[in-house]
Amino acid sequence: MIYVGVDVGGTNIKIGLVDIKGAILADNFIRTDKSKDYKGILDDIVADIKLLCNEAGVDYHDIGGIGVGVPGVVDSRTGTVSYSANLGWRDVPLVHGLEVASGIHAEAANDANCAAWGEYKFGSCRSMDNVILITLGTGVGSGIIIDGRLFDGVASAGGEAGHMIIVKDGKQCNCGLKGCWECYASASALISQTEEAMKKYPDSILRNVAEKEGKISGRTAFIAAEKGDKAGKEVVENYIDYIATGLINLGNIFHPNAIIIGGGVSNEGAALIEPLEEKVNAGLLASEHNPKVRIIGASLGNKAGLIGAAALVM
Amino acid sequence: MIYVGVDVGGTNIKIGLVDIKGAILADNFIRTDKSKDYKGILDDIVADIKLLCNEAGVDYHDIGGIGVGVPGVVDSRTGTVSYSANLGWRDVPLVHGLEVASGIHAEAANDANCAAWGEYKFGSCRSMDNVILITLGTGVGSGIIIDGRLFDGVASAGGEAGHMIIVKDGKQCNCGLKGCWECYASASALISQTEEAMKKYPDSILRNVAEKEGKISGRTAFIAAEKGDKAGKEVVENYIDYIATGLINLGNIFHPNAIIIGGGVSNEGAALIEPLEEKVNAGLLASEHNPKVRIIGASLGNKAGLIGAAALVM
Repeated sequence: MIYVGVDVGGTNIKIGLVDIKGAILADNFIRTDKSKDYKGILDDIVADIKLLCNEAGVDYHDIGGIGVGVPGVVDSRTGTVSYSANLGWRDVPLVHGLEVASGIHAEAANDANCAAWGEYKFGSCRSMDNVILITLGTGVGSGIIIDGRLFDGVASAGGEAGHMIIVKDGKQCNCGLKGCWECYASASALISQTEEAMKKYPDSILRNVAEKEGKISGRTAFIAAEKGDKAGKEVVENYIDYIATGLINLGNIFHPNAIIIGGGVSNEGAALIEPLEEKVNAGLLASEHNPKVRIIGASLGNKAGLIGAAALVM
Repeated sequence: MIYVGVDVGGTNIKIGLVDIKGAILADNFIRTDKSKDYKGILDDIVADIKLLCNEAGVDYHDIGGIGVGVPGVVDSRTGTVSYSANLGWRDVPLVHGLEVASGIHAEAANDANCAAWGEYKFGSCRSMDNVILITLGTGVGSGIIIDGRLFDGVASAGGEAGHMIIVKDGKQCNCGLKGCWECYASASALISQTEEAMKKYPDSILRNVAEKEGKISGRTAFIAAEKGDKAGKEVVENYIDYIATGLINLGNIFHPNAIIIGGGVSNEGAALIEPLEEKVNAGLLASEHNPKVRIIGASLGNKAGLIGAAALVM
């Protein structure tokens, strides 16, 4: 049996054929055509699935289901997207619409939850039943797995750890609150922190690094730190401390087996993961009496959402 | 069938006979004799249970089980207390010891979890399956119920929402971290905040209220505020804002049906609950598209732990 994973984003929609072991047989992406209503977009998705089937030599009728990840509030029980800012959707009966358009059984969930589900089923934390995936990107996404099941709260409205307040009355967040974790721990926040350090330490090599890379990115401070730059080290240490603050909160609340770190920043590897694991476990209540919470880099990269979406219907 | 609930504290141990509907047939308390090892304390508990049975005319052999709540890290699966600062216990096989001493089936859990379980089974949130109980006392305790089951993380080491950091690098907490929620939202924190306001506003009526009550308590600022005192109102507003900050975090992460507020402070009723419900729901992500998270006062008072402990074995 072959399954389809769909990862809907504000700009592109990733679509792939995935087998029962989580391997991608064929995948591509199409543009998210916002000039169309949701039914038009679903037709685009179905057309692309047929294209992928041709390409991979898969019979369309052999598809066991279509799983879809969507940025926004998705009630995974009813398959309705109650709200997606990125797509401009409100109360969209996504699963119903997709089943009508494709003639195939469908499921839907929030995109961060799909990524967590993908890592849980086929990635870094296959052997564990209690894990949290954190995605450090434009914002901070989170997916929570408890006893082998996706947890997202009543009406799937929970699982938004990025909007934990860690600095009361702190930086203004897009969500309306102040001091949310994602204002400090997202990749976007790291870029702002790097820009600030460039101004504060004009003699640091941060600017040279950024020029060489062509832009100020989430990598800039890590590269400078690796070269021994004091300003780069300060940015990296503070940033890791911000990430750790939210992870300690999640650790004290959930005490999972592991917290998986995804998003582009997770490519920094040991320079990020090792200090995080140390700080987090030092911050957990009665940590010397409890099993360690492991911190692990995500292993499916930017395909986690697509693979996890497909795994929704396996 | 009759069940026994035991709520072990650092000073006293509350013990009660509870029926299947959560009604207490007889209860009392004994001193926590810390000069004894855990086996001695368990013998004291069993002797008291026999006393209560005599008192209530219950046959000791009709007891269906003994549930115990303990302050500290209790692995509810194994019945072992890995650590309790209040009792000075470490790796105590509580359930095994109690079964040997009593000849009756036993279960154990963290005391805040027992209180949450009691409120869920017999108190304020009987009709809901996803609830969080917060206890505002010396610290801030929490018990989490997901889909009708107590959730406390791997090895029962989770469920410690009181140690969420809400003010990064803020006040020093006893746990070693800085800026934990309980440093701002506990009853003890409210008393400190009231004392500070007394110094800042010597002309306020806070001091008169405290003198009349015989001490500065968690009630002082609420009474002054009710009488129109500006300083009292400021203390109450800031305090409610601190509680709301942590509740918003829990709301965005769990989106439960309700959050139950227990502990002495919850006796303030509507003056506490109504502004909390408003602030919390205003702070939740995409709140206009999601069901409201209700904020409700606990209804079992200081017997919730005892009743919930008994409910562990029902």
